[in-house]
Amino acid sequence: MTRAQQRVRAAYEAIARAGRPEVWITLRDEHDVTAEARQVDARAAAGHALPLAGTLLAVKGNIDVAGLPTTAGCPSYAYRPARDAPAVAALRAAGAIVLGTTAMDQFATGLTGTRSPHGAVASALAPDRIGGGSSSGSAAAVALGLADLALGTDTAGSGRVPAAFQGVVGLKPAPGLIPTEGVVPACASLDCVSVFARTLPEARRALTLLASPTAPPRRPGPWRIAVPPTAQLGELDDGWAAAYEAAARRLAAAGAELRPLDLTPFTETAELLYGGAFVAERYAAVGAFVDRGGPDLDPTVAGIIRAARDIPAHRLAADRERLAVLRGRAAAELGDADALLLPTTPGHPTLAEVAADPVGTSTRLGRFTNSANLLGLCAAAVPGGSVAGRPFGVMLLGPAGTDERIAGIAALLEPPLRLAVVGAHLSGQPLNPQLLALGARLAATTATAPAYRLFALDTVPAKPALVRVAEGGAAIEAEVWELPPAALGAFAAALPRPMALGPVTLRDGTQVTGFLCEPAALPGAADITAYGGWRGYLARAGG
Amino acid sequence: MTRAQQRVRAAYEAIARAGRPEVWITLRDEHDVTAEARQVDARAAAGHALPLAGTLLAVKGNIDVAGLPTTAGCPSYAYRPARDAPAVAALRAAGAIVLGTTAMDQFATGLTGTRSPHGAVASALAPDRIGGGSSSGSAAAVALGLADLALGTDTAGSGRVPAAFQGVVGLKPAPGLIPTEGVVPACASLDCVSVFARTLPEARRALTLLASPTAPPRRPGPWRIAVPPTAQLGELDDGWAAAYEAAARRLAAAGAELRPLDLTPFTETAELLYGGAFVAERYAAVGAFVDRGGPDLDPTVAGIIRAARDIPAHRLAADRERLAVLRGRAAAELGDADALLLPTTPGHPTLAEVAADPVGTSTRLGRFTNSANLLGLCAAAVPGGSVAGRPFGVMLLGPAGTDERIAGIAALLEPPLRLAVVGAHLSGQPLNPQLLALGARLAATTATAPAYRLFALDTVPAKPALVRVAEGGAAIEAEVWELPPAALGAFAAALPRPMALGPVTLRDGTQVTGFLCEPAALPGAADITAYGGWRGYLARAGG
Repeated sequence: MTRAQQRVRAAYEAIARAGRPEVWITLRDEHDVTAEARQVDARAAAGHALPLAGTLLAVKGNIDVAGLPTTAGCPSYAYRPARDAPAVAALRAAGAIVLGTTAMDQFATGLTGTRSPHGAVASALAPDRIGGGSSSGSAAAVALGLADLALGTDTAGSGRVPAAFQGVVGLKPAPGLIPTEGVVPACASLDCVSVFARTLPEARRALTLLASPTAPPRRPGPWRIAVPPTAQLGELDDGWAAAYEAAARRLAAAGAELRPLDLTPFTETAELLYGGAFVAERYAAVGAFVDRGGPDLDPTVAGIIRAARDIPAHRLAADRERLAVLRGRAAAELGDADALLLPTTPGHPTLAEVAADPVGTSTRLGRFTNSANLLGLCAAAVPGGSVAGRPFGVMLLGPAGTDERIAGIAALLEPPLRLAVVGAHLSGQPLNPQLLALGARLAATTATAPAYRLFALDTVPAKPALVRVAEGGAAIEAEVWELPPAALGAFAAALPRPMALGPVTLRDGTQVTGFLCEPAALPGAADITAYGGWRGYLARAGG
Repeated sequence: MTRAQQRVRAAYEAIARAGRPEVWITLRDEHDVTAEARQVDARAAAGHALPLAGTLLAVKGNIDVAGLPTTAGCPSYAYRPARDAPAVAALRAAGAIVLGTTAMDQFATGLTGTRSPHGAVASALAPDRIGGGSSSGSAAAVALGLADLALGTDTAGSGRVPAAFQGVVGLKPAPGLIPTEGVVPACASLDCVSVFARTLPEARRALTLLASPTAPPRRPGPWRIAVPPTAQLGELDDGWAAAYEAAARRLAAAGAELRPLDLTPFTETAELLYGGAFVAERYAAVGAFVDRGGPDLDPTVAGIIRAARDIPAHRLAADRERLAVLRGRAAAELGDADALLLPTTPGHPTLAEVAADPVGTSTRLGRFTNSANLLGLCAAAVPGGSVAGRPFGVMLLGPAGTDERIAGIAALLEPPLRLAVVGAHLSGQPLNPQLLALGARLAATTATAPAYRLFALDTVPAKPALVRVAEGGAAIEAEVWELPPAALGAFAAALPRPMALGPVTLRDGTQVTGFLCEPAALPGAADITAYGGWRGYLARAGG
């Protein structure tokens, strides 16, 4: 089997193991997908440029995939397109392999992921909570490792809310940058195609293939991040305000300049999306179908769309005028900030809470996302830590065309990796400059759990070996350094024998990556545990 | 000591150890630098946004640093500026700490790094070869680990040639994007401020603080890389054509589309820089000083500048017209390509070769770099592999404003890290999807050197432990996977006990990172070496 075929096989095994049929609307037959993988491998072998060769793609059910039914989450609405939507075609041309179409809140109306005849999609990380929507299946397929990449759509926040609840990355350019031909409209003037991936680089690579926006220039200097007062965020779930503030602090620690912003124009714009006349666009898109009354219409979705039938046109005109004013106020608030940092949602409801109040819970979820498309902004929704063991998502919003810029800023939110050192890499010791050169930062001076013994190795420069023992262990002096993932990778790759990297338990019970040692180096090495650490040994044994 | 102070201490120790005084024109007193570091730490502690807090900066000797002499490599020319050049001020405002000014080809005239009264700067990686210039000291300070970041200037290639010869990264925006106020002009209409760093992310971060160019839009799709026929590159050093073609293949393997380009307009433009009338700008800048005849004038530099005195203005006007035509032709050749890939230089001369023919060797070095500023292009010079153990540099040139784009493409040239797996991560085994999810690629099916024994551990899923032994070892079946540095870092951080990562020797004698095991897990584990590998054990022992 070639590489792409291997990946297809692994994906179908994972899909079977996952037992989550509600994620998919149409999962393609494995044989068809394997045949497509074989073609991709052949094109790659023939020298074609395939940046996504073998990338497994899931496509939201409102985006055309040639030969598969487009249902928009409503089987009776289905049509079978002859051609891929341009976004699908672009990713396939780059070597992506379509696994199937994914479940969604019907007609992309809702942010919960529960308004689907295929069943509600739960969070992969918190099974009693919703997975978010409307691109519910796409985000879940990526979070569950069933697909590498997924296409979604985003009108009110459908490309971001499910990213937040599934702990994945969701990127959405400003409206108009990715063609929406071949997409069932939700609110046609605002709909965007969006991408989901597990990591920022993967999501950015896909975006490069779909759109290449022109970024406005910025005044040079540190990243300038607008942060509203927490009080303006309204009621948040327990612990979310602290998680949001911690994300802002991570940006500041990475050198960004935080500045206050009055969120009012953004909040007022957000309310315009469902509270005003824009919802008439939803009736224009599928109202006639909904009025005919399909057997599988979701009652909440049908209710929202039908209610828009009688909105007078003058109200839509007035709302557009009001939006123009709000756009000016929002732009003035942003000023020359590079991005606005917000929680992606105000909270994460349970499946039961959404079932009890389907409209109220969904409306609340859009508080921070609803304004982006009305204001013509791009957005990056990324994992921002966790609260009570559940994923907490944050969002960066930026002017149209600044997709690369806000994704670069979002990368600063990624937590650094931690490395425990006990010997020649301690502060002031001969190999410490290696850490400094990699941009590492001393995070803590501590000790290991009392489960280790320390040996002096016969190396140049002199190094100790930390060995975990079942009994007779002691706490050994240690420093914890923080460094970026790529730096830890480079460090691992440059390790001299007999050193190794593996899990080390610290005094406080946490586990971090630390220096271990190959067994082969230990015979004959002196046990120096009694000195309490490498520095103690050097000082008192003159080592 | 605070962190920035620690870094300053380590830098001065490294500078002393390096024994390379010719790198510096003025190295500041450590006490002054430490005091500056203390201020940076205090600003950081007070909550200021300092993206470069504690970054050690070297500044080329033709760029003003307040209070230090600006000599442009000619001590008798020196003046003592009251203010930092804007580029220096911007990096200092972001927390960078200036160590001093660095040696250069006098008046930035030359690409060799030998035209300096402080002595020639050799390559850190090939001591018999030149380090390249004219930003010779800046590139060397970074390559030697004495500074984290350095400012250079680039007119003919001075920000790129030394990057190539020192194995570091050199980025140069299009002319006009970073102010050249406070820089001694070489050829004022073309001079650019440039940055050097050991890694692309560090160089990009600095560039963000200095300029924020507006990138023109691109047609979506795979990266499109223009590659001239190797025959058009002219005479190259032995092995350089193959190294260049390998770099192009790496881009293709990363999904870029390679397309042919006729290099003629670029080559003809390059010849215009010194072969035409533009050199009159050098006379305009420092000709009067050179004519007075300082005691420390470099004879080669003085000869070049004096020879430009009598060039008639109509020739400069004619050259500008010719350049306009060449710009059109070069743009047509680039078409919608994202970048042009070239070797940074045609070869790497020895110090002796340059001493024997100072003008001829320098002229040859500019063959690929000379055109960039005349054509208004930006450039990224990055390590592109090695030839005969010496660094080989490649360069990506792109339209003005595409600095981020070409740096992103340059990142694709970075070699992946290699990881040897012998157990549950082998193809088809239960943990192999972890590697696939990280974007890893199977590079080789091989075996370890006959120096290991394999043990079956009592873990879930079942895993073996690879243990190096002094005698009685055997070759164990292994696969080598390639993965990006950040992915290897993430992998290291997520390792479950008792596994560790460290050096493993393969059958062919090469050493790669592989899975090792903590000694604590071995007592009681069954020795399964006789099965030849994990798959053999599973098949025959039903393990």
